[in-house]
Amino acid sequence: MLALLDPGTSVAGVLTRSKTASAAVDWCRERLVKGLARALVVNSGNANAFTGMAGEEAVRETARAAADAAGCSSKEVMIASTGVIGEALDPAKFANQLAGLADAAGPGNWEDAARAIMTTDTYPKLATRRVRLGDVDVTLNGIAKGAGMIAPDMATMLAFVFTDAPITGALAQVLCAGAADRTFNAITVDSDTSTSDTVLLFATGTASVLGLETLSDPLEPNSGAFARALEDLMRDLAHQIVKDGEGASKFITVTVEGAEDESAARRIAFSIANSPLVKTAFAGEDPNWGRIVMAVGKSGEAASRDRLAIWFGDIQVAKAGEADPGYQEAMGAEYMKNQELTVRVDVGFGTGAATVWTCDLTKDYIAINADYRS
Amino acid sequence: MLALLDPGTSVAGVLTRSKTASAAVDWCRERLVKGLARALVVNSGNANAFTGMAGEEAVRETARAAADAAGCSSKEVMIASTGVIGEALDPAKFANQLAGLADAAGPGNWEDAARAIMTTDTYPKLATRRVRLGDVDVTLNGIAKGAGMIAPDMATMLAFVFTDAPITGALAQVLCAGAADRTFNAITVDSDTSTSDTVLLFATGTASVLGLETLSDPLEPNSGAFARALEDLMRDLAHQIVKDGEGASKFITVTVEGAEDESAARRIAFSIANSPLVKTAFAGEDPNWGRIVMAVGKSGEAASRDRLAIWFGDIQVAKAGEADPGYQEAMGAEYMKNQELTVRVDVGFGTGAATVWTCDLTKDYIAINADYRS
Repeated sequence: MLALLDPGTSVAGVLTRSKTASAAVDWCRERLVKGLARALVVNSGNANAFTGMAGEEAVRETARAAADAAGCSSKEVMIASTGVIGEALDPAKFANQLAGLADAAGPGNWEDAARAIMTTDTYPKLATRRVRLGDVDVTLNGIAKGAGMIAPDMATMLAFVFTDAPITGALAQVLCAGAADRTFNAITVDSDTSTSDTVLLFATGTASVLGLETLSDPLEPNSGAFARALEDLMRDLAHQIVKDGEGASKFITVTVEGAEDESAARRIAFSIANSPLVKTAFAGEDPNWGRIVMAVGKSGEAASRDRLAIWFGDIQVAKAGEADPGYQEAMGAEYMKNQELTVRVDVGFGTGAATVWTCDLTKDYIAINADYRS
Repeated sequence: MLALLDPGTSVAGVLTRSKTASAAVDWCRERLVKGLARALVVNSGNANAFTGMAGEEAVRETARAAADAAGCSSKEVMIASTGVIGEALDPAKFANQLAGLADAAGPGNWEDAARAIMTTDTYPKLATRRVRLGDVDVTLNGIAKGAGMIAPDMATMLAFVFTDAPITGALAQVLCAGAADRTFNAITVDSDTSTSDTVLLFATGTASVLGLETLSDPLEPNSGAFARALEDLMRDLAHQIVKDGEGASKFITVTVEGAEDESAARRIAFSIANSPLVKTAFAGEDPNWGRIVMAVGKSGEAASRDRLAIWFGDIQVAKAGEADPGYQEAMGAEYMKNQELTVRVDVGFGTGAATVWTCDLTKDYIAINADYRS
């Protein structure tokens, strides 16, 4: 997939924290310092991770070929790779197709682009938002891939958002990082982090011809309106990824309140959302709230055992550190039949709150991942 | 299960770090301060966790009944409960059986004891060691339960070791904590930590009638010999637990070398051993070493990507941050057919090393845990 970007496009991004990040991630990290982009190249099938010096050279060659096709400097090319880890990537395979892709590029090819970056995804992931900034409507279009935080070998979550709003690189970075934190960084399928996770926000600035001033101040109303649209779009894409989680049959929202602070709430929420026992219970439609107590306990975060309260949707299951006397197993069992579930936990300690999203853990997850290459 | 202990028995222990620990765990934590025990009561089926004040009262009643049966103070009774979380425990159910159990108690009933504490375990777990301290042979007998760090609702790993060696409470605590750290705390089935994990070491001291002086100094040769036997016995029990892991078909040793320090090595090893993608690959007999690279990366610990090396058994798979040119997929595929597997990773950064043990993640794990209560 090749995306061509107007002159003056700023780029911001969030990259995997993995210590074994791919060569493409290292390349993007360097490019984000300047924050200017004219092209984006994404290949699927090979992650170009753990490929040593050859991997770095493959990235450089890809950037040169894309720069030729796009008519820009290779330092203005962003690159993302998704696929098998540890296999050498031959850049010639797609580099010689970039000129043809550039010729065929058009403003409306969003679904083709979303399909081109799929690996084990079962559907293309797209979202769009329009937001009025003063007198001008701007558009945000996003595409994403990922069948979970990870797909089997096809490790990686990738998301690319494009807007015609004019935004300074510095503000774009703040908005992108903040929105990613509450969306793509708040989902989990199986707790495995890829070597290649990449979220990029491209702002072409073409809406400035309509009289829109460049957004630069986060406190300005236009910046707030854009930030809300961006986060809403990213949340949409993030939920699409979880719903396409490998083997997933349920979409689960986990909200934690009453924690020491927001970070603590998030760690407790992820302890619940990543617990194999919690996730298998959901797969079995079993309202097994004892496992949620276990997951709160293992998080290591402060919680008041004697004030802990748990809800499935609006049904209170536990309060004041004990089973709620009004709760009956049949109520929970009925609720578990829903395809979208909410678990809310108040740990009764402070005011920190956080929400994360996950899916259940089914036999299909094992089948997909155990038999993937064999 | 009721165990009666000779007068003067010292007790040491390691208890779950869960913030939602069971009432029995809280009770044991208080008792370990004095470190004296005359009886141990273990019930299976109800964990007495998240049961509020009623749970605490149930523990006190159980201790009183056991004290009556054993002829001791209730403060000399240790208690462990395993089973469903969040359901009230009626101590009358087993408290009125304790006198009968005390009458039937005998020195050779180890297998009965091991069976009595089982929940979803598929076999009783016992181990014994004899060690010569000076002129005197002492015995260590251990029993354990746990089909994983957790069993479904039947959360918990319990282990109890009994010896006739005379040991001060202080030394017993040091030896028990050290051995548990390298054995029971170095295993994982699914990364879920129970509300009830309990390891206790009881030293009756009856071997002192044979002229053995009480062990008190960790640097003394007898203490070293005892410590080695204790760790060997605990490792044996720990491996039995992993091999009985829910749905497990493979026993996997994960060794990490070259980390910043021992703690870092341990965190990387657990990142590998807990990764659903690594564990499903083993289940599928897929030598998918890219997932090990991913798990090293996501641990967040320092690793040199350009010096990283990976072995399956004696087969080198990756070196210097790339696939080993001499490695062929068929070699790894053949190795994966073994029931016991070893993964060794050198992260090429420092001298820290650690070993942990785990099992694979199969469809049977999902079946056991999704359908457990329904």
